[in-house]
Amino acid sequence: MEKIVVAIGGNAISKANKELENVCKQIALLIEKDSKIALTHGNGPQVGELLLSFEKANQKITLDVVVAMTQAQIGYEIQTLLQNFLGKDRKIFVIPTRVLVDRREEAFLNPTKPIGPLYAEEEAKRLMEEKGYIMKRVTMENKVGYRRVVPSPQPIEILELEMIRRLLKEGIVISCGGGGIPVVYEEGKLKGVEAVIDKDLASALLASALKFDKLVIATNIEKVKLNFMKENERDIDEMSVDEAKKYLKEGHFQEGSMKPKIIACINFLESGGKEAIITSTSKIIDAIFGDAGTKIRK
Amino acid sequence: MEKIVVAIGGNAISKANKELENVCKQIALLIEKDSKIALTHGNGPQVGELLLSFEKANQKITLDVVVAMTQAQIGYEIQTLLQNFLGKDRKIFVIPTRVLVDRREEAFLNPTKPIGPLYAEEEAKRLMEEKGYIMKRVTMENKVGYRRVVPSPQPIEILELEMIRRLLKEGIVISCGGGGIPVVYEEGKLKGVEAVIDKDLASALLASALKFDKLVIATNIEKVKLNFMKENERDIDEMSVDEAKKYLKEGHFQEGSMKPKIIACINFLESGGKEAIITSTSKIIDAIFGDAGTKIRK
Repeated sequence: MEKIVVAIGGNAISKANKELENVCKQIALLIEKDSKIALTHGNGPQVGELLLSFEKANQKITLDVVVAMTQAQIGYEIQTLLQNFLGKDRKIFVIPTRVLVDRREEAFLNPTKPIGPLYAEEEAKRLMEEKGYIMKRVTMENKVGYRRVVPSPQPIEILELEMIRRLLKEGIVISCGGGGIPVVYEEGKLKGVEAVIDKDLASALLASALKFDKLVIATNIEKVKLNFMKENERDIDEMSVDEAKKYLKEGHFQEGSMKPKIIACINFLESGGKEAIITSTSKIIDAIFGDAGTKIRK
Repeated sequence: MEKIVVAIGGNAISKANKELENVCKQIALLIEKDSKIALTHGNGPQVGELLLSFEKANQKITLDVVVAMTQAQIGYEIQTLLQNFLGKDRKIFVIPTRVLVDRREEAFLNPTKPIGPLYAEEEAKRLMEEKGYIMKRVTMENKVGYRRVVPSPQPIEILELEMIRRLLKEGIVISCGGGGIPVVYEEGKLKGVEAVIDKDLASALLASALKFDKLVIATNIEKVKLNFMKENERDIDEMSVDEAKKYLKEGHFQEGSMKPKIIACINFLESGGKEAIITSTSKIIDAIFGDAGTKIRK
């Protein structure tokens, strides 16, 4: 029985398309082929929607709570789709998951992860003054504007790990959504923090902690590219960890996009994983059983 | 070891006060006295906030998803408070919970449960036309206006029951938040519905299914009243199921407020429960170990 963590990209989960249904159909097929599956997922579009709504209503909400809410929101959606593909007796568990981070980490001094909607300059300035947000000029869906940036600390420990491990014996577990609810210990107390953990790094941590064989990162591109967006761009079918590290150093992988995915794969393979795959949400099956996707092996 | 379901009223969970902290302090004390505790909670204020925010941002959201989101939101909040009272090694599980209802039930033809914010007449009319909402004239926090009403069907089955039972062996379980995510089977498929399950009825179902000894419903009043709001109003310290039924028939208990709580207690006691207590969120301990609250026994 193959044990696979599948990390579903946030872009697949936006309401606009039926991609999530397509992903769940593939997961159902894997289950029927007797694979053991732990699912994780992004939450970018849902976080954006929730933050924008609360802002319009002039209500406050912190990022740890936003992550918790979107974990149940998206988890329930995936659970329902899977349940209806696999039948009502199949056990599918949704686990709101807390992930420990370290407040002393550099990431807290230098927030880099853009979240929420795109703002015009004036609105951005107002939010910086009124709410103390840090905003950066970015391009999003071909528009230029400002987005709030928050710390993206490393995931250190998945607090619900034992529960996830146990429930995997009986069914499919959906956990670590949106990278997990970021929490720290402060003077012995658990406390949520205003940060967003990269969901691929959290997925890699989950896959290694569970000692699973494979990590599949399903995103919006079929294969990882060398020389991305350049004239000599080309697909990578396979690479070793050493090659991945070399390409990483050479700057082939985009910051905040492909780069953390490659790092997640390296982390997983260096802590005992057998194979990491990056592919599009529509090619999960084709990548696991065929030539699709980019495969990284030790 | 006493096994207790404690249902925390939604009013205790609004951000405005520190009541939730007070509730968790009492729960921690119960745990230290070696009780086994399953927690449930309301979500009224949070549902209101979320619906209003999505409306202001002109975004759609269905009630099943709203319940799922508030389960993780409030569950995480309770979990954090309890964790910090009990220490980091104590296991506290938050379970997004689906509860089966019956689409053929009368409740779906006659929606009665008010949810979300209070609207002025004009706004209410617009929402009725644009979104097909059913609105009713109500009084809320001493203001008169219109609120959306939705079906409040009976909880039939807690889909996460086995998981809850298992996790209770190792720690505290927070489940059935907001009465549970309302789902139906339609042509063999699971589907969320636009409804809100009464959290006290769901808590009673949970308590009987788990074969727990006690159900404690913590709300905003210390004791149940006879002749509520009348000149001859008086506290009820204790009553039997038969007395409770008689008073219910005589109309002592307010629709949508005390009435469903009394029915929940009767349901629990008639399916094997030993004692049901209704009291205020600040008197949980005093009611379990002393004279506070209204006790109902078979």
